[in-house]
Amino acid sequence: MASVPSLVSLCLLVLSHACSAQLEQVTSQHGWTRAAALRHTIEERGLLLPAYTNAPKLVYVDQGQGYHGAAIPGCAETFQSQEESQQQQDPRQGFRDQHQKIRKVREGDVIALPAGVADWFYNDAQTPLVLVQIMDTSNPANQLDNNFRKFFLAGNPQQQIQGQRGQFSGQGFQRGESHSGGQEQRSGNIFQGFDEQFLAEAFNVDTDLARRMKNENDNRGVIVRVEDRLQFLTPEFSEEERSEYQRGRPANGVEETFCSARLKQNINDPSRADVYNPRAGRITSVNSHNLPILRSLRLSAQKGHLYQNAIMAPHWNMNAHSICYFTRGTGRVQIVDENGRSVFDGEVREGQILTAPHNFAVVKRAGGEGLEWVAFKTNDQAKISQLAGRVSSMRAFPEEVIANSFQVSREEARRLKFNRDEVTLFSPGSRSQYRA
Amino acid sequence: MASVPSLVSLCLLVLSHACSAQLEQVTSQHGWTRAAALRHTIEERGLLLPAYTNAPKLVYVDQGQGYHGAAIPGCAETFQSQEESQQQQDPRQGFRDQHQKIRKVREGDVIALPAGVADWFYNDAQTPLVLVQIMDTSNPANQLDNNFRKFFLAGNPQQQIQGQRGQFSGQGFQRGESHSGGQEQRSGNIFQGFDEQFLAEAFNVDTDLARRMKNENDNRGVIVRVEDRLQFLTPEFSEEERSEYQRGRPANGVEETFCSARLKQNINDPSRADVYNPRAGRITSVNSHNLPILRSLRLSAQKGHLYQNAIMAPHWNMNAHSICYFTRGTGRVQIVDENGRSVFDGEVREGQILTAPHNFAVVKRAGGEGLEWVAFKTNDQAKISQLAGRVSSMRAFPEEVIANSFQVSREEARRLKFNRDEVTLFSPGSRSQYRA
Amino acid sequence: MASVPSLVSLCLLVLSHACSAQLEQVTSQHGWTRAAALRHTIEERGLLLPAYTNAPKLVYVDQGQGYHGAAIPGCAETFQSQEESQQQQDPRQGFRDQHQKIRKVREGDVIALPAGVADWFYNDAQTPLVLVQIMDTSNPANQLDNNFRKFFLAGNPQQQIQGQRGQFSGQGFQRGESHSGGQEQRSGNIFQGFDEQFLAEAFNVDTDLARRMKNENDNRGVIVRVEDRLQFLTPEFSEEERSEYQRGRPANGVEETFCSARLKQNINDPSRADVYNPRAGRITSVNSHNLPILRSLRLSAQKGHLYQNAIMAPHWNMNAHSICYFTRGTGRVQIVDENGRSVFDGEVREGQILTAPHNFAVVKRAGGEGLEWVAFKTNDQAKISQLAGRVSSMRAFPEEVIANSFQVSREEARRLKFNRDEVTLFSPGSRSQYRA
Repeated sequence: MASVPSLVSLCLLVLSHACSAQLEQVTSQHGWTRAAALRHTIEERGLLLPAYTNAPKLVYVDQGQGYHGAAIPGCAETFQSQEESQQQQDPRQGFRDQHQKIRKVREGDVIALPAGVADWFYNDAQTPLVLVQIMDTSNPANQLDNNFRKFFLAGNPQQQIQGQRGQFSGQGFQRGESHSGGQEQRSGNIFQGFDEQFLAEAFNVDTDLARRMKNENDNRGVIVRVEDRLQFLTPEFSEEERSEYQRGRPANGVEETFCSARLKQNINDPSRADVYNPRAGRITSVNSHNLPILRSLRLSAQKGHLYQNAIMAPHWNMNAHSICYFTRGTGRVQIVDENGRSVFDGEVREGQILTAPHNFAVVKRAGGEGLEWVAFKTNDQAKISQLAGRVSSMRAFPEEVIANSFQVSREEARRLKFNRDEVTLFSPGSRSQYRA
Repeated sequence: MASVPSLVSLCLLVLSHACSAQLEQVTSQHGWTRAAALRHTIEERGLLLPAYTNAPKLVYVDQGQGYHGAAIPGCAETFQSQEESQQQQDPRQGFRDQHQKIRKVREGDVIALPAGVADWFYNDAQTPLVLVQIMDTSNPANQLDNNFRKFFLAGNPQQQIQGQRGQFSGQGFQRGESHSGGQEQRSGNIFQGFDEQFLAEAFNVDTDLARRMKNENDNRGVIVRVEDRLQFLTPEFSEEERSEYQRGRPANGVEETFCSARLKQNINDPSRADVYNPRAGRITSVNSHNLPILRSLRLSAQKGHLYQNAIMAPHWNMNAHSICYFTRGTGRVQIVDENGRSVFDGEVREGQILTAPHNFAVVKRAGGEGLEWVAFKTNDQAKISQLAGRVSSMRAFPEEVIANSFQVSREEARRLKFNRDEVTLFSPGSRSQYRA
Repeated sequence: MASVPSLVSLCLLVLSHACSAQLEQVTSQHGWTRAAALRHTIEERGLLLPAYTNAPKLVYVDQGQGYHGAAIPGCAETFQSQEESQQQQDPRQGFRDQHQKIRKVREGDVIALPAGVADWFYNDAQTPLVLVQIMDTSNPANQLDNNFRKFFLAGNPQQQIQGQRGQFSGQGFQRGESHSGGQEQRSGNIFQGFDEQFLAEAFNVDTDLARRMKNENDNRGVIVRVEDRLQFLTPEFSEEERSEYQRGRPANGVEETFCSARLKQNINDPSRADVYNPRAGRITSVNSHNLPILRSLRLSAQKGHLYQNAIMAPHWNMNAHSICYFTRGTGRVQIVDENGRSVFDGEVREGQILTAPHNFAVVKRAGGEGLEWVAFKTNDQAKISQLAGRVSSMRAFPEEVIANSFQVSREEARRLKFNRDEVTLFSPGSRSQYRA
């Protein structure tokens, strides 16, 4: 049986806001959820260097907008430039570049990426691009151990990674110290491990350029500033196409192939809500039904908006862990284990992350400003079982079973079963109404 | 390589008969099979409290009959009462209850339940309802560690759980002591971990009722006695429907949805036997072919009846562990590891449980009263490979391969291959017939 | 984070050539790849005794030819002899044997076998039959722990298994010592663990023959010499059928059932190459697309031929470990971890085995005689992501991303992207050509 401390240390990991425009990393490695969380704040003209990881990932765009590129083996370079001769740095007139598809991303997008696929992000806007990434190292796609591994294709991440780790202890927070224990050994990009003669031969370039691929004296970190604004090819949308795009559907009815598979879905748009209660809030999910690539990733995500003082139904996650990153507001969360013991009971606020382990009972209540979150779930069709409300276990049981189980009267059993008629999101204050 | 003791301790776990009408628990946790076994004896008007577990489970109804209810999220309350006004406890005349489907269960039924689904049992008959449950915590559906966890929705299991654990040591049995080490920390139902104000708000009830949901002073244990006989809605069967029901088929040809998925199958009925030898016994299986929900549970079960002195063919389990609970009679079992060493060789009897690990070689022989068992298998299409008889490996090999492998003559190889012409279940005494 | 030594010790395991006609065993058991490698050299009239293992396996026929028989439960004995009366050892005239399908195997064949299926090999030719087998104990089909277990159905393997284990340490090789630590406890075939009375009854034979099945005084080892050449039934091929056979296709278009499922595919035939560069070499894959049984085994294999001084593109394995056995020639291999550190950099030669862990970056270059290998992959659709050449990540990225990531000019970025136009296999010397 897991000891309480091991649970608690998983339950709350604080993501620091301190170091802007740089990497912030939190790795949650304990007995159950084996997931790593990273938040990057990319300033204007910042490029998050190409890298791949040993686990499938979901990226949530918490703020801003930018571009995302992924290198998917076997897929063609379908974006071809016609004239880049205006580019100052281009010595050859009329040279045409070609590369794989690039995706515009914006606040509220969830981006899904299989393990082992290299990708990069670029912020072309003036406001910061803030990304929250979850890598599920316990996923069967990871054949290494449960340690999170990031393989950089360029740059020299060595000096930049400073783990910010926070732990919840007792009833208070301990702000994470910057510690470099496990990170110290990290050095450079993967080309640093190859012989430069080998590299020169493989790339068919001179040894000097091969050596420079290693970026051994690069101090720029994992997010580098691009001097001249990057210019990519991106298609122009018609109005109609843009509205299709915003609904997350391909503009035509053509069946997607692996190479054209949709990798993202916006979950901020209120019109896409799966659960909506004008007095309590809304919930929007992205899962393998509406983003099919999630089937192979075995991950899904949920965006929750809880209005002022509203409650999310007490429930348990039936088939997943739920790794919850709070994006706005404040609230209070309680988590209960199989012994009926509270393993987390505390305030949560914007910028924090909290894991509700598989099967543990959870309740959330928004504070005075409401509460918003994105929950990453380790199942592509994550399900919850609610304890109260119209679609709850209580409704499924006969009244007499409830009365005898709790040793309450038939009339009280009926109240437990029927007094709350809302689904998933409960409005505040209705209790006083009932008690009258 | 596993040491012999670790194997042996898994091989035999004695389920006590001592404490009737209460919970008996055996947890088998070792390097391989991660499964928990529970036996409940529910007396007349006993209600096994609603709870869910972190692993899919199979329940075998060893004796008696009763009702089973499961709360499956997303499924409607399809059972609706019309008049319960005769109920004394009902203060409101004409109030109609509604709840999810309730299933009548009887001796020989196997009930399958996905992880995280809450369920309850009730005994409406005068004879005890005895249930044997296996929870497979090594199943991929369990995202926690391999510890078995049971989350009670009501009651106060604290005082009642007394683990009965037996171990096989050396060549003799050690009857399990009641020990409370790992169980001591267990306390109450999951509502105990929530703040009662939160509960009151979530259920929209007063704080007093919310507090009473915690059942903190409840001494009734996990099986509670219902004062007035529970009255559920259950459909009346026509004779034809009943016979369909007994064959485990839906009465009409309508495709099952998830909510109407069949959760049970009777495996005691001789007419359903998959293997039948009038001189040796019969075997009946429930797997994903005849109970499709088992596909997602990755579990199956086998009921075996071995007549007096008959033998089950020496075999190995190709793709599963086989957790065998002996329901009637006595017999002798031998289990052999990859080194040709005997890891179990002993008598077995009614009420005991024995695991044959994946790939280990096994042989069973009934005693003078025959031997019956239910074997729970950790694969929804569990297969065995037999060493003797008509469908054995010996038959698959050419005679010359057998002769040279064992260094026996062609004629002896032929005897090893052809002397036993029965399948799976071998009649006793035919050897002497041959030797003549 | 794994320490370097643990990786290195997995990276190179030397398979001895020393003991001909006998078993050589290397087991690679570390944190990640849980696979066992065995090489058997079977001399003329040698029979590798029937056995099954707790993991699915791939067998590569490195030299020679012979027969393979597998005992698949539930499949019929479809090979029936008509007259074996010429056999001297056959005391009964006209007796007909029948057994399951036997497969002729030859150099370059990959044979796939599910976990728990017993099989045997026989060499009917005058040249040695050399087999290299990989058993993936981390496969979900193995429900025991990650130890490799082989269950012999006959013989007495005790005296013969002498583990030859080599480790790579620092920058040099340490030739494996013969050590018997973990092997010492291994004793005999699985019948040794059964009571001989039980066996006699089960097989319906006399106790003396049952006792002899245990082969307790058998000193022949796991490969036994057959005195009189084994004579199996094998179908005669027409020329057309033979050519179909050699293309690995069934002679008719009939859908395969489980029992007739193809278990092998030749990957030496140059006409089947998936990648071919007349100046660099060729690669041939067998995966679940061309050998469907691999889908359930979750394994695949790749045969590589690299010509003199040619290079295999630097790459990483996206979704598999790659366990590489070098069959001919010499070469140099470099493997790099997520920190950009070299974890292997050394010469490889015929008879050695080297594992490239999931996601680690790899480059191979052939020596003056070329380099050939068979790579076993722990995914039935293993994919690599290449770092250089026409289908590489470099091509997928926009030039500007490359230029800014590596801090090189646009023109240099273009060279990294376009200078190598070959796919997967790169010809030597083209670099000097470019540098002019």
